[in-house]
Amino acid sequence: MTPKQPSERIRKSPEQVRAAVHQAVIDLLTATDGADPTIPAIAQRAGVNHTSIYRRWGSREALLADVVTTRLERDSPLNDTGSLRGDLTAWVRAGVDSIRTPEGRLLIRAVALSMPGSADAQTERDQHFRRRLQSIENIRERATARGETPPPLDQILDQLLAPLYIRAIFGIDPPASGYPELLVNRLLGT
Amino acid sequence: MTPKQPSERIRKSPEQVRAAVHQAVIDLLTATDGADPTIPAIAQRAGVNHTSIYRRWGSREALLADVVTTRLERDSPLNDTGSLRGDLTAWVRAGVDSIRTPEGRLLIRAVALSMPGSADAQTERDQHFRRRLQSIENIRERATARGETPPPLDQILDQLLAPLYIRAIFGIDPPASGYPELLVNRLLGT
Repeated sequence: MTPKQPSERIRKSPEQVRAAVHQAVIDLLTATDGADPTIPAIAQRAGVNHTSIYRRWGSREALLADVVTTRLERDSPLNDTGSLRGDLTAWVRAGVDSIRTPEGRLLIRAVALSMPGSADAQTERDQHFRRRLQSIENIRERATARGETPPPLDQILDQLLAPLYIRAIFGIDPPASGYPELLVNRLLGT
Repeated sequence: MTPKQPSERIRKSPEQVRAAVHQAVIDLLTATDGADPTIPAIAQRAGVNHTSIYRRWGSREALLADVVTTRLERDSPLNDTGSLRGDLTAWVRAGVDSIRTPEGRLLIRAVALSMPGSADAQTERDQHFRRRLQSIENIRERATARGETPPPLDQILDQLLAPLYIRAIFGIDPPASGYPELLVNRLLGT
């Protein structure tokens, strides 16, 4: 019998595992300037078994998407501002704040990098986007409940998500001020 | 003395080197489902010395950007259509046609993947974007010469480039028809 690793002697709660794994992803991305971290490397750094990571997240793509979404939600919980315009502006502002940090930029970039390139992998990509767009769907549903008419999801993808992602991936700074309002004005009209 | 490789016995012209290297990039991207090809692998496949690649392109990022831009220009040379709206629509149409092919999608993805993640690498990213946006600048200059007022480059980045890139990177199909006109209408008004 091989001796157990020290990390396994102290059993972690599921929440501790999740926090340790998330932190390991961030640490590795920051340390390697965004090179795509492998699951064994993440597991080692987090002090957990790599099988736990596969069991819990299924794939590296799903794990990265979970880290990005969780951090965005934690950094700026999206409360109901009372209007579609207010909600979308708050959503974009959270994204802009995030891509202004090296960590946030590396995370979004990592999600893009981890997307499977082939057309067969449609399901995995769909899953990522469903999760990532869930907060947008919530905003759209609240708007509809208020009697507002939100733009289709596809248009929000093109006009709000795409500019943020492309700037994060290519490292192009957004305008210094007023960018969330600018993007939302272009989407909804002024 | 080590024997020369067969490929080096027949000396290639600069144009032949360029064509062979470009084709090798496409072949490798297609074969590996978009995994970022290394310069030694590209050199081997193209039958050229990897030092020639470094000498000519300087970096893998510059090479990938050159391949993408060259293919876009070859597949749809951007003639003067007589109006800003016509020119931009033709430009987007070329991009949409390109990301509908697996090869085009892998290429744009590869450019995104090859972008350096760190903030220090601003110069390289700027170079890529200058080259990539040159065709947009040409369109803007023609418009200004006609007395039209083109939108700023930054807005074209957000509203035309970003949706195409994000769809290429994440493999989200653009709407089946009318997408170039839709994006240009959103940019210029209908």
